[in-house]
Amino acid sequence: MDDQAAELVERGRKRIEWIRSRMPLLAAARADFAVSRPFDGLRIGMSLHLEPKTAVLLETLAAGGAELVATGNHGSTQDDIVAVLRADGMTVFGRRQDSVERHHENVAAVLDAAPGILLDNGGDLAAGVVARGIESSILGGTEETTSGGDRLRGELAGRVPFPMIVINDSRLKAIGENRHAVGQSVVESFMRITNMMIPGRRFVVAGYGWCGSGVAHYLRALGGKVAVVEVDELTAFEAALDGYRVGSLENLAGWGEVFITATGQAGIITEEIFPLLADGAVLANCGHFPWEIDVPALTAAATGIHPLDEAIDRIDFADGRHVILLADGRMMNLAGREPKGNSLESMDLGFLLQVLSLERIATAADTLVEGAQPVPDDLDRLIARRMLAAMAADR
Amino acid sequence: MDDQAAELVERGRKRIEWIRSRMPLLAAARADFAVSRPFDGLRIGMSLHLEPKTAVLLETLAAGGAELVATGNHGSTQDDIVAVLRADGMTVFGRRQDSVERHHENVAAVLDAAPGILLDNGGDLAAGVVARGIESSILGGTEETTSGGDRLRGELAGRVPFPMIVINDSRLKAIGENRHAVGQSVVESFMRITNMMIPGRRFVVAGYGWCGSGVAHYLRALGGKVAVVEVDELTAFEAALDGYRVGSLENLAGWGEVFITATGQAGIITEEIFPLLADGAVLANCGHFPWEIDVPALTAAATGIHPLDEAIDRIDFADGRHVILLADGRMMNLAGREPKGNSLESMDLGFLLQVLSLERIATAADTLVEGAQPVPDDLDRLIARRMLAAMAADR
Amino acid sequence: MDDQAAELVERGRKRIEWIRSRMPLLAAARADFAVSRPFDGLRIGMSLHLEPKTAVLLETLAAGGAELVATGNHGSTQDDIVAVLRADGMTVFGRRQDSVERHHENVAAVLDAAPGILLDNGGDLAAGVVARGIESSILGGTEETTSGGDRLRGELAGRVPFPMIVINDSRLKAIGENRHAVGQSVVESFMRITNMMIPGRRFVVAGYGWCGSGVAHYLRALGGKVAVVEVDELTAFEAALDGYRVGSLENLAGWGEVFITATGQAGIITEEIFPLLADGAVLANCGHFPWEIDVPALTAAATGIHPLDEAIDRIDFADGRHVILLADGRMMNLAGREPKGNSLESMDLGFLLQVLSLERIATAADTLVEGAQPVPDDLDRLIARRMLAAMAADR
Amino acid sequence: MDDQAAELVERGRKRIEWIRSRMPLLAAARADFAVSRPFDGLRIGMSLHLEPKTAVLLETLAAGGAELVATGNHGSTQDDIVAVLRADGMTVFGRRQDSVERHHENVAAVLDAAPGILLDNGGDLAAGVVARGIESSILGGTEETTSGGDRLRGELAGRVPFPMIVINDSRLKAIGENRHAVGQSVVESFMRITNMMIPGRRFVVAGYGWCGSGVAHYLRALGGKVAVVEVDELTAFEAALDGYRVGSLENLAGWGEVFITATGQAGIITEEIFPLLADGAVLANCGHFPWEIDVPALTAAATGIHPLDEAIDRIDFADGRHVILLADGRMMNLAGREPKGNSLESMDLGFLLQVLSLERIATAADTLVEGAQPVPDDLDRLIARRMLAAMAADR
Repeated sequence: MDDQAAELVERGRKRIEWIRSRMPLLAAARADFAVSRPFDGLRIGMSLHLEPKTAVLLETLAAGGAELVATGNHGSTQDDIVAVLRADGMTVFGRRQDSVERHHENVAAVLDAAPGILLDNGGDLAAGVVARGIESSILGGTEETTSGGDRLRGELAGRVPFPMIVINDSRLKAIGENRHAVGQSVVESFMRITNMMIPGRRFVVAGYGWCGSGVAHYLRALGGKVAVVEVDELTAFEAALDGYRVGSLENLAGWGEVFITATGQAGIITEEIFPLLADGAVLANCGHFPWEIDVPALTAAATGIHPLDEAIDRIDFADGRHVILLADGRMMNLAGREPKGNSLESMDLGFLLQVLSLERIATAADTLVEGAQPVPDDLDRLIARRMLAAMAADR
Repeated sequence: MDDQAAELVERGRKRIEWIRSRMPLLAAARADFAVSRPFDGLRIGMSLHLEPKTAVLLETLAAGGAELVATGNHGSTQDDIVAVLRADGMTVFGRRQDSVERHHENVAAVLDAAPGILLDNGGDLAAGVVARGIESSILGGTEETTSGGDRLRGELAGRVPFPMIVINDSRLKAIGENRHAVGQSVVESFMRITNMMIPGRRFVVAGYGWCGSGVAHYLRALGGKVAVVEVDELTAFEAALDGYRVGSLENLAGWGEVFITATGQAGIITEEIFPLLADGAVLANCGHFPWEIDVPALTAAATGIHPLDEAIDRIDFADGRHVILLADGRMMNLAGREPKGNSLESMDLGFLLQVLSLERIATAADTLVEGAQPVPDDLDRLIARRMLAAMAADR
Repeated sequence: MDDQAAELVERGRKRIEWIRSRMPLLAAARADFAVSRPFDGLRIGMSLHLEPKTAVLLETLAAGGAELVATGNHGSTQDDIVAVLRADGMTVFGRRQDSVERHHENVAAVLDAAPGILLDNGGDLAAGVVARGIESSILGGTEETTSGGDRLRGELAGRVPFPMIVINDSRLKAIGENRHAVGQSVVESFMRITNMMIPGRRFVVAGYGWCGSGVAHYLRALGGKVAVVEVDELTAFEAALDGYRVGSLENLAGWGEVFITATGQAGIITEEIFPLLADGAVLANCGHFPWEIDVPALTAAATGIHPLDEAIDRIDFADGRHVILLADGRMMNLAGREPKGNSLESMDLGFLLQVLSLERIATAADTLVEGAQPVPDDLDRLIARRMLAAMAADR
Repeated sequence: MDDQAAELVERGRKRIEWIRSRMPLLAAARADFAVSRPFDGLRIGMSLHLEPKTAVLLETLAAGGAELVATGNHGSTQDDIVAVLRADGMTVFGRRQDSVERHHENVAAVLDAAPGILLDNGGDLAAGVVARGIESSILGGTEETTSGGDRLRGELAGRVPFPMIVINDSRLKAIGENRHAVGQSVVESFMRITNMMIPGRRFVVAGYGWCGSGVAHYLRALGGKVAVVEVDELTAFEAALDGYRVGSLENLAGWGEVFITATGQAGIITEEIFPLLADGAVLANCGHFPWEIDVPALTAAATGIHPLDEAIDRIDFADGRHVILLADGRMMNLAGREPKGNSLESMDLGFLLQVLSLERIATAADTLVEGAQPVPDDLDRLIARRMLAAMAADR
């Protein structure tokens, strides 16, 4: 390894160290795996973000004897982390600058390696396996995302003859990640990006599901005045009894100072809403897809777009008003100069769901049904107990 | 009517007036029913608490054209309210002083009246109908309680050839009543009965379901330090992320100053726990059944039992410690000199679920399946919208 | 003692028992006093409410060797408690039914007894002493109320040649009683009197001092939407940063559903406001004097006044609207069928301020200045430490 | 101006733009000043941080006609901002890399310019004026900090024959900045630096003054379990009634996971405490001076010190435990890769206190007394009203 490469590895290791030290659930799993070696002789093919947190996940699987063959997602791969993983003996494809074509080649390369287990993200590996007709060599796998789960239950339904455990279906994950970790990271990123005051400020949160209710809760906890927009009547009633003002976006558009979308649906803040917004209103999104704020329509309606700071753009309208758009309508908690994303402990929890589900695949795939399924109930409960112990919740 | 009877009616009407004025959902239903008359020609047989709040429910059904034949529950019938209902032309059996035998006769008398619709409470009417084999004359009915719903799905499963809508299955009711109204009434009754300070006080709440999580939330909101005991790991994890201390009753027994059971299960605070409690600990229950605190065991373990105030007993132990038992371990929010129970608005909501479910039975029973079933989704949503409007939730 | 009198004493003792058991600070003081006997040979002349809580205060002073000569306040004396106190050897004047004239005779009778120390309430005893010119025989005393303190610093300034410690000046009391105990008792009494739901309800709190900020805090904690009216700009700013909507009563009059005055000033809800109130608005007061809601003007503006329930009146206006007045505009937390008032622990704290201040008068009057003065700082701190220990605040 | 210089100015202007757009109070003052020109013909000598927020302050004074002569504080000067200010015609001394000696020369250069008004920070300018004996040419000035105020009332007492308004004495600033803005920025910086989860985590906050109570409040609001250490009994009692666990640092040392000092005093977390801390405990400070955590003692006790991430060091002890030190014990809310500091709105408020105080000096110095004094009450109230209006607090 030349000096430059060594330096890259060194930098990557440094960044992983703090994170690893705050993931006690994975640390315990690594210790267990070092003895039980559930993945001995097995190759896991993976498609996932390659950044410092996931590096700790990969280490853990490797400690269990797995041979790892991984590709990053398009555009999010961090090269210093890749350097570390390769230095540790894993086969990793992909670089930050990869084109889309190159990314597809990377996915193909993972499948070429003939993995026996899949760790999938968005259903790409599962779809590739089906397309190649190589299902019989696969024990099973996990799928991280809801959208991958939807794909498994939709276009791939009945075509995947091995178990795929959908991690995001876990109620544990909904509580620990969607409600609390996203809620916390949204208030963190709002403050970090804008440096604006929360106490006494008027926020409108669109959506009161797991994420939206968490965001509304934490904004109010920090002293914000929070109104909720929710189309489902029963959920809207829940928000009203939780003490929120609950109304339509049309009626709240002139009242709010900051709007945060968390519905999971497209077309929430649209051209019908723009004329109703007060001058200087701030628009942000924390839903997975960047379609809740109709940015193309916003751009079309603008007479000028001025970047003011990292992830802050001023959009001018012809009538003299302007609005502020954060992070181009993408997930605000991954934006700005130094994005942090969800808390380390919530990732530790989510990753333990991953590794124990993969262990179940490796050791007892025959106890599972074919196709998409939630995390086995006994694993959910085991992990809940471990998390309670790690938190020392009884103190 | 003699003077004494007139006075009784007068007193009853007075007590109903304030309550009626704070039940806008039923008021609107009465106005609708006066036009649509959904119950014209129908007799509704009822078994329910007869007190001022239910009187407004009965008025509303009568406004829809129903002929009402009702009996109170055993021991809770309020004679002045019965007098009002009779003066208004309803057939009402039962008095506060009735024996159990007499109560059974009252239930039988309701069935003797050959009702076409049932408003049941605990499954007594439905069981009577099955026993008598008179099912064919019944359009259907509603069942208020979860335990009645369990009975319909258990011993009566397959034997009730008409729809029975179980009101308590509604998520609307779980939110409005179980979480918020019970939570609010528990803190109200704790303060009203004991006059004790909440800020800084150490509470242990057993159970973190709809009721328990509401109780924990409101106690903490008032400044209490709250620990939660919950046997389900996933729910315990939810409590931990909500910021509560979460542990076993054994470990928290010496820490808590006040213990409130809300599990729905028997045998929570038992003889194993008594020796662990600190001197002066207060024991209370808000679950439906008086079995969560093992009062017989407590009585057996006591060297003396001293009533100190209404619904407050001091239980002395041989080792010199004592504990305080509220309301004999019965529902604390219905105890004390002037019990209030759940808020008027939450009852208004629950009763609208009743009357619109009964209207559905009366007008479209053929759209429903036989046996136990939840409130039709469209009614749940309609009522949620009406409640949001009545609250002016958007202001 | 005849049977009836014995029964009265018995009833009184019963009512005191629970209360005494929840006043650990006074219990410890009684134990200390039994040894140190600071009041041996001293007669304390007292003017105070005579009810179960104050009975525990009197017991404590008696345990310190004091000879007690007391009169109740006009109209609040509870005869069974008086019977207990007399049975315990204290000299007590006054009965519930006493006329104002008779009450003045009672006050005079206390002074006739030539007390060496005063426990005053509103300045009546101090004023009597000055009028009679018997100051030289008095060591000093305590004054419970702010209005009595104002009198000592106003019309009696320079005329009271002995120390008078004004209990209400203590920051400890402002925190423990004005903010937290009153805040808690206002939400308790609102729920107890009206049985109305708090979550999602719109409240307007007038005044954001110790009491008002406590009331606003606890209403919001229970899920209420709370707006604040406050004339002092700096305090209004504090409320705004605490996250409340802050506006004028005129602008909030049509928004609020419930209005609670806590300003200490007269003329807050006046005839200018009545026409702006929404139909069915509820008006209540928790300030000491019944002048914050202009009840005479309200009565004059009414076309009808209908009592609906204990402490609940409906006031009809000519334009068809009505409002609800609670407790005739008097302190709502002392109203209703079973008023509780401030929590036992907050009274325990306030009474310890009394007894230790009286002990200081008895044992070291020469360390104090003449006239009105706050509780000595060392006592404030000693009591804070005892309260922290009694609460086991570190657990 | 050469290309490089132009680029520097361009970059600085960009960074100021977003900040300026969120400071409406200064914007209004600029508009007023452009008409009233209170500083026409006056030179203001300034010592302050030179960064984007203060640039908006300087613009505002310049808009009022002031000639500005400024030096930055040692070590905090941002060169691009200096470039902007110079391009706008102000005389600015200092660069980021300046030595201490050079900094002293800069301060001297400001005084050499013979300013008629001072904007001081820590008392350096006032002390220089006294040392030079040039007091007669000075109308007066403002002092930003508490420590500068202490100096004016201490070593400089009686020696400054002109008014110096101490901005930090304002209750408005204590509420808006010390409690809320610092509280908010501490939770923001904790999340930003560590990426750790707050819900369910155990925090110990040392100090319950304006800053500490704000920090404790916001940590608890985000779901943390918070204990408070406070040596003043009355303040400790306040914390206890606010529902916090309140104890000694010794007793809480083993319980806490994260310790945040906010006392303003030196020597809070000392070598006596180190052995009591749990393995992995995190130590942080938000007080102004870096002396609350005894870092020299910590370094001396360490067997190794390992930087893990920006502002995160692991300190190893001989017994195998380690602790994490954030930001070397300096103000955590100014640390990390992208520190934000207090919210824009709280700075807008604080700067309006500055500019209106300076205007008062310029236009009515004769209405003020000599030496240190708080912001005139009428200005405090005026600014409170403007802030309430800018927040639209009544919506």
